Amino acid sequence: MPSTRSASFLEDFSRLSAFGATARGGVDRLAATPAHAELRSWLRELLTDLGFDVRFDAIGNLFGLAELTPGAPFVLFGSHTDSQPLAGKYDGAYGVLAAVHAAATVVAEHRERGTAPRFNIAVVDWFNEEGARFKPSMMGSGVFSGKLPLEKALATLDPHGITVENALAASGFLGDFAFPQLAAYGEIHIEQGRSMHESGTTIGAVAATWSAYKYDIVVHGEQGHTGSARMGDRQDALLAGAHIVTAVNDLIREFPADALHTSVGEFTVLPNSPVTIAREVQLLADLRAESTDLLDRAYGLLEARLREVEERTRTRIEIRSRSVWQSGPFLEAGVRLVEEEAASRALEHARVKTLAGHDATNIKDLVPTVLMFIPSVDGVSHNEREFTEDEDMLRGLEVFEQVVRRLSDGDLEHAS
Amino acid sequence: MPSTRSASFLEDFSRLSAFGATARGGVDRLAATPAHAELRSWLRELLTDLGFDVRFDAIGNLFGLAELTPGAPFVLFGSHTDSQPLAGKYDGAYGVLAAVHAAATVVAEHRERGTAPRFNIAVVDWFNEEGARFKPSMMGSGVFSGKLPLEKALATLDPHGITVENALAASGFLGDFAFPQLAAYGEIHIEQGRSMHESGTTIGAVAATWSAYKYDIVVHGEQGHTGSARMGDRQDALLAGAHIVTAVNDLIREFPADALHTSVGEFTVLPNSPVTIAREVQLLADLRAESTDLLDRAYGLLEARLREVEERTRTRIEIRSRSVWQSGPFLEAGVRLVEEEAASRALEHARVKTLAGHDATNIKDLVPTVLMFIPSVDGVSHNEREFTEDEDMLRGLEVFEQVVRRLSDGDLEHAS
Repeated sequence: MPSTRSASFLEDFSRLSAFGATARGGVDRLAATPAHAELRSWLRELLTDLGFDVRFDAIGNLFGLAELTPGAPFVLFGSHTDSQPLAGKYDGAYGVLAAVHAAATVVAEHRERGTAPRFNIAVVDWFNEEGARFKPSMMGSGVFSGKLPLEKALATLDPHGITVENALAASGFLGDFAFPQLAAYGEIHIEQGRSMHESGTTIGAVAATWSAYKYDIVVHGEQGHTGSARMGDRQDALLAGAHIVTAVNDLIREFPADALHTSVGEFTVLPNSPVTIAREVQLLADLRAESTDLLDRAYGLLEARLREVEERTRTRIEIRSRSVWQSGPFLEAGVRLVEEEAASRALEHARVKTLAGHDATNIKDLVPTVLMFIPSVDGVSHNEREFTEDEDMLRGLEVFEQVVRRLSDGDLEHAS
Repeated sequence: MPSTRSASFLEDFSRLSAFGATARGGVDRLAATPAHAELRSWLRELLTDLGFDVRFDAIGNLFGLAELTPGAPFVLFGSHTDSQPLAGKYDGAYGVLAAVHAAATVVAEHRERGTAPRFNIAVVDWFNEEGARFKPSMMGSGVFSGKLPLEKALATLDPHGITVENALAASGFLGDFAFPQLAAYGEIHIEQGRSMHESGTTIGAVAATWSAYKYDIVVHGEQGHTGSARMGDRQDALLAGAHIVTAVNDLIREFPADALHTSVGEFTVLPNSPVTIAREVQLLADLRAESTDLLDRAYGLLEARLREVEERTRTRIEIRSRSVWQSGPFLEAGVRLVEEEAASRALEHARVKTLAGHDATNIKDLVPTVLMFIPSVDGVSHNEREFTEDEDMLRGLEVFEQVVRRLSDGDLEHAS
């Protein structure tokens, strides 16, 4: 890749990382917050300068379109620019900028040569991938792919009672663009795990995604005085919630090492007052594994533990909702495409799986989809210390440019 | 007690319970919130109508003074009108209103007869007894008794970053009244336990208070991605916090039944986002028992468990602060005074202890102090279902009127 293009990418990445930047080198840029809106204004200007037509759809996805072949379907490339609180600057944002630069290069080539690709080329910044402000995560791609009803997504509240619709309107993200026919999708992302960094792999061709079961659990207890209520009389929702957190963690011991990942990330106590026994706890439990069989077995064990916790703490545990992300392989032809391009550049490459969810896992059920990874040092993510070497970003960009080129030329048109 | 006085008390109690009333018959009236300010405006008017001079001191304690014997010290009677979130209407509020009615009756008698008591008579509504909005609890009586520095109390922040000083100023509670010499204190309260209700006791003479050790604990973990971070790499502050909650509860098994009460009431997770491993948990653990010896042994056990949790979860656990409420007996002459008055009315009475903290436990270290209880059905408290029969409120008021009469006549003047 010519060094001027590399320099231009790194400059833009440094500008982009300034939106919502934190003192410790990370970003804090929750969906539709002022920092996120400022970033998107900048992105819109960048895309416009590069000759893309910028549009927002009804769930706040930002598209930049280059119609080189009038009336033809589009191939789409992108990721997301929202972040978790106090998060890293690479997660999502790298993939959006790589898509912009790669697509701009390919579009410019066609314009210079006066040629037209098989498919038109577009880039996307999906809305609210992180789900930190509005649940569920991967909201923009979820609505786009028809998995999440638009009305439900728009009515979702943040912790301050602001709807997605109002947040989108306030930040200028609300549009009515209807995306034309989609032919294929490509995304590049940091790994968010340490397998590539440890094995010295530069390019990861994502071949499979783990399944995830997510449980929205409510513990119903009874409010009381922490000092005077007898221990045996209590129905302490916080104690029950604590038993659930440890039970969710204990599940991993029932399976081979690293076969199951479990966690509770959100845990809210009511009324959360110093001398008051909690009347309610709301928590989100997350079980992930390669196969849904294993997840079904893990959940069976958890369910039995929940009954024990109920009995022991005299509380009632309600599974308010469960969401399932099915695992599944990525298109073999897309995986091979990434492998070929990495090999032809003598870059260390490997087939990898993704444990984290990505917008690509929503879109891969619609059209041929390619997801590729670059390494992240020590696999640190959702943390200000998240770090990827510039060289790795540039090598990823180089391969991703080929993904854009080949997908727009119709390479995966007949793959299935 | 004449039935007109009874009716007037119950009417006023019903008016008072309307401030911050909840749909389920409780109250939600955190310190210096609009509901609390409205109640205090009403209380100020009531006291003024009854011939009391109303003053606020620098920490927002509301006093109503009746100076019948110019220059003599005062005896003081009261409790608090703030509440926990979604709490009961009796806790504190009953005691304030009983003090107002009892004091007004005794003051009116003197004024009618043209007599003067040994001591002047005042009532008090202590500020922020609950500690639900501003920590620590018993703030107003803590400052009054010199146990809590005024400057520290005024600088305390609520969860929205509002200082006590600003909240007091905004609600009109900030004054500069310096209370004159104090001779004795009396308080009546619901039991907040079920021993009196179960044994059919109408009047409880509080003879002792339990000790409490309170620990402000912070767990330091490392933020990460709940899906992709390997289980063995995690430093999950929520998992560690959950182990602390269960460890605090497990302590009770090491001691005889009902000898130790433990709990965690406040538990805050950062960043509390669905797919992010918690970087920090803040929690308040509370150990209560009759003797500090037992509490010291319990804390020794807990400390060892905290070290295990640190090791197991790769987190760091910090005890940010510890506060101690020493137990101690109430003045024997005051206990006997309550017993005598109950017995002379043929009311079932017993010596009881208090497990909950009360403003009286702060004031009893300054001057002769009487604390008496009336029963609470099933001991339910800090809960909208908190309930005490009207008859029990009236019987308590009748005895408490005698406490006011005898303390103002100098009954405990030479007791120690």
